[in-house]
Amino acid sequence: MNVNDTIAAVATAPGESSIAVVRSSGQGVKDLIRSVFRTPSGKKAVLPTKRVIRYGFVVDPVTEEKIDECILLWMPGTKSYTAEDSCEFQVHGGFQSVNLTLNALMRSGVRIAEPGEFTKRAFLNGRIDLSQAEAVMDLIQSKTEAANKAAFSSLQGKLHNEIIRLRKQVLRLQAHVEVHLDYPEHDDEEIALVQVIQEGEQIHNRIHWLREAAVKGRILREGIKVAIVGKPNVGKSSLMNLFLGRDRAIVTDIPGTTRDVIEEYISLNGVPIKIVDTAGIRITEDLVERIGVEKSHQEMESADLILLLLDVSRPLEEEDFQLFSYTQSKRRIIVINKIDEILQWDIDEIGSSFLKKEDRVVKISIKAEKNLNDLNHEIVSSALGSQQQDFWEGALMANARQLAWLNKADESLQEAIEAASFNVTLDVIAVSLQECYKNLGWVIGEQVGEDLLDEIFSNFCLGK
Amino acid sequence: MNVNDTIAAVATAPGESSIAVVRSSGQGVKDLIRSVFRTPSGKKAVLPTKRVIRYGFVVDPVTEEKIDECILLWMPGTKSYTAEDSCEFQVHGGFQSVNLTLNALMRSGVRIAEPGEFTKRAFLNGRIDLSQAEAVMDLIQSKTEAANKAAFSSLQGKLHNEIIRLRKQVLRLQAHVEVHLDYPEHDDEEIALVQVIQEGEQIHNRIHWLREAAVKGRILREGIKVAIVGKPNVGKSSLMNLFLGRDRAIVTDIPGTTRDVIEEYISLNGVPIKIVDTAGIRITEDLVERIGVEKSHQEMESADLILLLLDVSRPLEEEDFQLFSYTQSKRRIIVINKIDEILQWDIDEIGSSFLKKEDRVVKISIKAEKNLNDLNHEIVSSALGSQQQDFWEGALMANARQLAWLNKADESLQEAIEAASFNVTLDVIAVSLQECYKNLGWVIGEQVGEDLLDEIFSNFCLGK
Repeated sequence: MNVNDTIAAVATAPGESSIAVVRSSGQGVKDLIRSVFRTPSGKKAVLPTKRVIRYGFVVDPVTEEKIDECILLWMPGTKSYTAEDSCEFQVHGGFQSVNLTLNALMRSGVRIAEPGEFTKRAFLNGRIDLSQAEAVMDLIQSKTEAANKAAFSSLQGKLHNEIIRLRKQVLRLQAHVEVHLDYPEHDDEEIALVQVIQEGEQIHNRIHWLREAAVKGRILREGIKVAIVGKPNVGKSSLMNLFLGRDRAIVTDIPGTTRDVIEEYISLNGVPIKIVDTAGIRITEDLVERIGVEKSHQEMESADLILLLLDVSRPLEEEDFQLFSYTQSKRRIIVINKIDEILQWDIDEIGSSFLKKEDRVVKISIKAEKNLNDLNHEIVSSALGSQQQDFWEGALMANARQLAWLNKADESLQEAIEAASFNVTLDVIAVSLQECYKNLGWVIGEQVGEDLLDEIFSNFCLGK
Repeated sequence: MNVNDTIAAVATAPGESSIAVVRSSGQGVKDLIRSVFRTPSGKKAVLPTKRVIRYGFVVDPVTEEKIDECILLWMPGTKSYTAEDSCEFQVHGGFQSVNLTLNALMRSGVRIAEPGEFTKRAFLNGRIDLSQAEAVMDLIQSKTEAANKAAFSSLQGKLHNEIIRLRKQVLRLQAHVEVHLDYPEHDDEEIALVQVIQEGEQIHNRIHWLREAAVKGRILREGIKVAIVGKPNVGKSSLMNLFLGRDRAIVTDIPGTTRDVIEEYISLNGVPIKIVDTAGIRITEDLVERIGVEKSHQEMESADLILLLLDVSRPLEEEDFQLFSYTQSKRRIIVINKIDEILQWDIDEIGSSFLKKEDRVVKISIKAEKNLNDLNHEIVSSALGSQQQDFWEGALMANARQLAWLNKADESLQEAIEAASFNVTLDVIAVSLQECYKNLGWVIGEQVGEDLLDEIFSNFCLGK
């Protein structure tokens, strides 16, 4: 990627709206403004060395014909988002206004930005580290307030600062060990080993704490996937609708939803929960084998939690027992529906070959809206464990990549501590500590390769 | 509506994006900024008397907790969009960021704006007239570049200026007539009548020109509605797909599309054309009566142009002839499809009781992509008449309301001219001229009532 040229993109969501923003960044921004912006009196804008707002017009760079009214934001130098000369054109939020403006910019020689390229430049120009860059999209895509908060913390550099602090501690310990290697007469080696064990444990505890915060962040980032499973007419769609209707925190529709599987996000106690209604699942004798290829089957397999819905007003059927077997290996809540009607069976009748002792059981009536809070409570406690109060306190938005490197850093540290415990030579310990230092660096994207950068930023939305 | 309080709204389209803008306007904006904005060092912003950009944070007005990073635009006084103190908060384009920001603003005591309320304030504060205010949404919703251009002209005050000029002419003529009424000895009445006739004709010509420009504008604004009609398997959907695939200018999907009727906008020679595929129409003997209540039937009725699609590779059937009868009163193009196959009949075989002499006939093959440009040409010429070159030159975005008042103004003027021709007394002429002056005023919204304003602005999008 060339970071010396000038890029532009639409920064706001598509759709008819009051305002749309077309932004640009790079060395050529000043020339761009000279080429496509005119003041109300038809002049080129005088651009000072600080940020300013100018009212005027986007014009065709060749014909000088006015394209739209606009508010121009000029943000020079290092204090912009990208740490480069930047500008924004606020135009009318119509399809034509935005496209004609973008075309005018293109004709002035700027290039359409790749997804994430503005943030990538902010990273490459050293304004933010990789953990902050990744937090940008986490913030935009966050499904609940708690997720938003955690992502904002990471964006503010909380993860970055924690890592920097840990690395300093590791470096100090490493220096101490290396002094012994260079000047063995300087101090007692025994003391150095004790220090590695003691300080190492402190660092380990801090990494452990950080990992816990990051695991919470990962839940916030990715949500808990809950699949509703049950035979036809047991109330799957009603339960789905209830979740969506009762909890006003529906945050998004998932595009590309198949006809068979309906997905929606809801927020329960701050946990983004992706509820999947596997309405398409029909288990009958002859379909059992074919089901393996179905999309709805995959959805069930990949769920973090199964809600197995049963109808207590009808006798249990072969299909119910098949679903029991089928979800045997999954974490699940057995949801007994229609308890407001005449009960045809009791949970005790279900043999232990079908019911696991880990299964939770909730008896509800969707129609009579009975015990629905119990169900919500079970779902949340299944997701968060017992400690639900202030669960999100201290959560740090982190992704799989960052968690993996934290784990690796911890492993290297453990190796150093173990080596010290078994009186292994100091040079081996020094190597492990160095490894730990390096692994921590990966979390914040130190010396990260172009390939990984490309992959990370390709998941960004356009204009960011 | 209270115009003394402070309003706020999201000004950008919903959806995950790089940037979202929350804007606010009113007397309380300065207090609002003091309440919810902090600089990076945690201070309140110092707001000068001119427009500035500040980087900082949206905070909770009570807890001072940071909600999101933001760019603050402060636009004081009369030079803002609304001609009031205004500001914008550019936050991250995520559902949570936008909602939390808006909530923080609400907690500071600002009110959610009604649709169009920002523009309504611009109008009430005298910054723009009604023709300009209405052009704002026309600009945002414009479907083609030509439509965008015409709306932008109106927004720039082209219609406004034309009306102002015409009113001055009418007023001058009126003054001249009234001098005669007050001082009959001053001049020869005969000369005054000649002047009314001569100058009246000039004004009439100008109004006529303006009406023509406005009629074009109305086409650009509302588009031409073309319905594709034909029996099953005649190629309706293929033709629809061809329109959409060949012409890259698909500008929008219409939400709320029914299962039976598919609508899409395309651009042919700058004309926004709404193509309706009435796939749901099935005319059989017993359904003919029921069809009257169908949505697809209404679509066909309200179309400006019918494309009656026939299959020349199969003999004509009862159903084809029924469609002929059924669309008899509409402007239509008879589209004979599948001319690449073995022809089973000829257009001459269709009797004059079915075929009107105004019907245009085009022979095509959708499959072999034959003569499709001919079809496009017929559609455009049917919409624009013969004079297609530079058709849009001088088009003025106008709506039905504005056109109606232009027509009324012209009628009043004609009455004055006629009265002068028949030597009717000058006081009658003066009344007609006064009526003409008033009617012109309605076009630009002079002395317009609250009801009409409410109706006009309720069609705006939120945040505008």
